[in-house]
Amino acid sequence: MIARTLISDPADPRLDDVRDLNHSDSRPDLPGGKGLVVAEGPLVVGRLLESRFPVRAIVGFKNKLDSFFATIDPALVEDIAVYEVTRDVLAEVAGFDMHRGLLATADRVEETPVSQVLENARTVVVLEGVGDHENIGSMFRNAAGMGVDAILFGNGCADPLYRRVVRVSMGNVLRLPFAHLEGTYTTWQRSLDQLKEAGFYLVSLTPDPGAEHLEDALAGKEKVALLVGAEGPGLTEHAMRATDVRARIPMAPGTDSLNLATSAAIAFYERDRSQR
Amino acid sequence: MIARTLISDPADPRLDDVRDLNHSDSRPDLPGGKGLVVAEGPLVVGRLLESRFPVRAIVGFKNKLDSFFATIDPALVEDIAVYEVTRDVLAEVAGFDMHRGLLATADRVEETPVSQVLENARTVVVLEGVGDHENIGSMFRNAAGMGVDAILFGNGCADPLYRRVVRVSMGNVLRLPFAHLEGTYTTWQRSLDQLKEAGFYLVSLTPDPGAEHLEDALAGKEKVALLVGAEGPGLTEHAMRATDVRARIPMAPGTDSLNLATSAAIAFYERDRSQR
Repeated sequence: MIARTLISDPADPRLDDVRDLNHSDSRPDLPGGKGLVVAEGPLVVGRLLESRFPVRAIVGFKNKLDSFFATIDPALVEDIAVYEVTRDVLAEVAGFDMHRGLLATADRVEETPVSQVLENARTVVVLEGVGDHENIGSMFRNAAGMGVDAILFGNGCADPLYRRVVRVSMGNVLRLPFAHLEGTYTTWQRSLDQLKEAGFYLVSLTPDPGAEHLEDALAGKEKVALLVGAEGPGLTEHAMRATDVRARIPMAPGTDSLNLATSAAIAFYERDRSQR
Repeated sequence: MIARTLISDPADPRLDDVRDLNHSDSRPDLPGGKGLVVAEGPLVVGRLLESRFPVRAIVGFKNKLDSFFATIDPALVEDIAVYEVTRDVLAEVAGFDMHRGLLATADRVEETPVSQVLENARTVVVLEGVGDHENIGSMFRNAAGMGVDAILFGNGCADPLYRRVVRVSMGNVLRLPFAHLEGTYTTWQRSLDQLKEAGFYLVSLTPDPGAEHLEDALAGKEKVALLVGAEGPGLTEHAMRATDVRARIPMAPGTDSLNLATSAAIAFYERDRSQR
């Protein structure tokens, strides 16, 4: 039986990690931000426990804790505080009704250096200007599912450890290596040289009908970095110029471009297929 | 200049089409349902005007109507009532703040018969048990973008003309042909015979690692129907048995399956690629 502490006073400071939850995941430099990693629901809480992030606390309703603990190795939670709360208490602390009823918080850890992330990687994604949390979360889910080794962030991307990203990624942001490339809007592209030196073939994903078919662009490549820009503006010309090829997914004439994470998933599929 | 009528009384019955908007798109057999097709925002309203659905009214803020009408052929709206309202009036009528400020409503039309939908089609999707509006909307967006000719609905799918589907599909549900196959949970699969008779090769999409690789399953096929089931349960065994092959998208071991619309988009890509 895993020990737990019942807390019935919403003001109890031991619940501060999940207080005002819409802010506690923001970076510490933002108003109200504590920079915590917040996992919700049994699948993602389980992945947080197995991740590199040091878990601080688990908070949940009695029945949710019961069923979650029945499925995990007790050694995983040996030194972690476990707080049992009612739905009403958690709603008051978190600031909204958390019907999932199971949460865990962790500290951030220092980011793995880019060079280390690239070490044994054969396929990586590089994002530029992707500010949408849902797109970043889906990207991690698809990348993890389809054998991509890491995600690198160029300039102007949203925080991958934001609570919504963690949730949409189904916890894959806690498992798949990621790192940030240095530089501003007009200079970050230079850090792509690191990838070239590591032997990566750089591929820009673009809706441009004049670009190469994805199949041709990826054929016979040993190590590939796929560059993806924001939905709408896409990659900057600066970024595309720094790559070896511009590749497109064929689209029916007069239609809209695909969702960002969907386009990337198709590229992940083609990358895998090109290696069959 | 396109004529319009200013309405400042939220009780005006001419605004009944957009009254209590969270219900007016429901099917007429449901509580509060009027079964109207509701388009939101200039892109989707424009697509509604060009669709087979007879438009009843356009409702919008002054500035939204101005900018929308500046982009369209006035002949498109010749016999359609146009009502100008303020943000406050629309919020009171619709039941929530409609910040997009431009709406159009249309009547449903009788569904095209399955035989007619299949007539010149070479690639169709067949859905079973897909109850999620967002997945259906994304499916239409991806299908239209990637050259799929039609979507057929097997048993247990949500209403494709629900307002949220129209929005998520970016109006493509108003352009891409669709039809419903007859039958219940255990009998609808028989109507797949129509597709076989029309020369379609039937492919079940499944995460089953024992299934054929999508590339092999689609290679050299002239007409293809891709069957897709709900996220989680997937296709019923009944449905899969009625198809010619079970196909999988290769996934990394120990990972989650892909989102439904994403899996389908990958299959659409492979279908197009197999015909290069």
